[in-house]
Amino acid sequence: MQNPFVDRLIERAQERDSRVIVGLDPNLEVLPNFLQERLRREPTETNIEEILFEFNVAVIEASAAEAVGFKPQAAFYEQYGLAGMKALYRTLTRLREMGELILLDAKRNDVTHTAGAYATAWLGAHHPIFGTPNPWRADALTINGYLGADGIRPFMQVNPEAGLFVLAKTSNPSSGELQDLLLQDGFSVAEKMAQLAAEWGATAMGECGYANIGIVVGATYPEQAARLRAIAPRAPFLMPGIGAQGGSLQAVSAAAGADQLGAYAASSRGVMYPFAPAALSGPDWRDAARQAISRAARELRLAIRRVLASQGG
Amino acid sequence: MQNPFVDRLIERAQERDSRVIVGLDPNLEVLPNFLQERLRREPTETNIEEILFEFNVAVIEASAAEAVGFKPQAAFYEQYGLAGMKALYRTLTRLREMGELILLDAKRNDVTHTAGAYATAWLGAHHPIFGTPNPWRADALTINGYLGADGIRPFMQVNPEAGLFVLAKTSNPSSGELQDLLLQDGFSVAEKMAQLAAEWGATAMGECGYANIGIVVGATYPEQAARLRAIAPRAPFLMPGIGAQGGSLQAVSAAAGADQLGAYAASSRGVMYPFAPAALSGPDWRDAARQAISRAARELRLAIRRVLASQGG
Repeated sequence: MQNPFVDRLIERAQERDSRVIVGLDPNLEVLPNFLQERLRREPTETNIEEILFEFNVAVIEASAAEAVGFKPQAAFYEQYGLAGMKALYRTLTRLREMGELILLDAKRNDVTHTAGAYATAWLGAHHPIFGTPNPWRADALTINGYLGADGIRPFMQVNPEAGLFVLAKTSNPSSGELQDLLLQDGFSVAEKMAQLAAEWGATAMGECGYANIGIVVGATYPEQAARLRAIAPRAPFLMPGIGAQGGSLQAVSAAAGADQLGAYAASSRGVMYPFAPAALSGPDWRDAARQAISRAARELRLAIRRVLASQGG
Repeated sequence: MQNPFVDRLIERAQERDSRVIVGLDPNLEVLPNFLQERLRREPTETNIEEILFEFNVAVIEASAAEAVGFKPQAAFYEQYGLAGMKALYRTLTRLREMGELILLDAKRNDVTHTAGAYATAWLGAHHPIFGTPNPWRADALTINGYLGADGIRPFMQVNPEAGLFVLAKTSNPSSGELQDLLLQDGFSVAEKMAQLAAEWGATAMGECGYANIGIVVGATYPEQAARLRAIAPRAPFLMPGIGAQGGSLQAVSAAAGADQLGAYAASSRGVMYPFAPAALSGPDWRDAARQAISRAARELRLAIRRVLASQGG
């Protein structure tokens, strides 16, 4: 496998001394007032696209130095129809031009041909008809493994370099309704999913020693994160739930592994919106927003570094 | 609840004496040669959009009289980028103008705000900013319940009338890797998911006596379909896997319930592509395609009716 995602992930983490993945979840209702006001004055599809993209660029430029990569959440673009999709298109293109790693959070899932179509859409190197480079491609994609291997293989085949993160234990309060149930062999559903992901990943190892298939593990469940690390020792962990959802840095540390390179904290609202919208009502919103975003991203990066240092010490 | 999806589903099934949901999974590589040739001569984004939409219209018009509703599969549109999304937009708009029921197969899943954004995108009655009618809205959406109630409630809240189909037992060969595993209470993971869907659905009952939350159950697993019917007696079943995947009409019959209105066979390739692409190379492709599609849809409708009659008799 040439240049798999996981090798680029680990290399970038070391270069930037960071374990932070910055979410890009644009929500017009919490953007700086200046942008909201602009949309109220001129409520057009084009303006939605423009504002989402402009704000994303501010977030990306302010936080790139502190981040391992960026995680656009597909739902937040889909909710604005074609305008949202165009903003996503431009965001992906900009991230790629800047050389930033893109982890698209879309939790796609289906089987055979249909899973292959999702893979073509979001991971394919080329347009399925024209053969031109696919401007929508991400470096990695979150997927839901409920359908088993038939739902995973097509994603691995369409672009073997692309990384995958399979949902194991999600960060939300009700995740246990299904994921914590114990199977007859004593493992939970989430642990079984991690086992499956580890099996699939064993056939797609990077030179870094980690697998190109990782798992999603909520930072809100530190004890389970440690158990899942033991079950899937070579899987990179994508860990949402830091910040707004009350996730702990201890969970990231518990899942980081001996080399401390195995766990990545995904933060969206905490890094994107560290300001009151009303405080940013003037045309100078960008400078103030960028300062606050840059500070929030740096503080998260350093806080994780401190926790890892105290554990590794 | 005013006019929930499930009441419209059951009413339409009775009106048309049908249990067929026609999939709309456009794949340029298997379209009539005439359309493929047109794209080769003029390989543009606009032409992709136009051809996907034209073919969908032919399928819809040819099969509507035989169908309870239509099930566009999001992946097949996403794979063609903005051109695909525009074709989906026009397809949804056309279906709505014709008064056809739309079950969007997108298997979306996430929690709280993010699930709400997916719900806004695909089920919301109105644009989240402009308040205008949402042209992307479907009548029902397939979702993946792996994340528990936090991942279901936002879909129920954004549009209480909208129907949901939660993946329980999927039609693919590897679905058992996770879904067939037995929990400590003796139920399988798929059965537990059906129990959860039944609980969620109990708070959203239609006047027809069925719940507005159904489950997806592969027609490839007749015995499990019968067990799931016992577990979720009031859930409408969406049953893919007929035709190309070898699913059986017996499974539909086993899951239909005493009133024979509980199970719906989803067929995509079998109804959409009942012709050899090379046989349709002339400008008269439409007539020949429509005849074949209409016949395939009618045969499936009548075959299900026969199986139901022999069981119900």
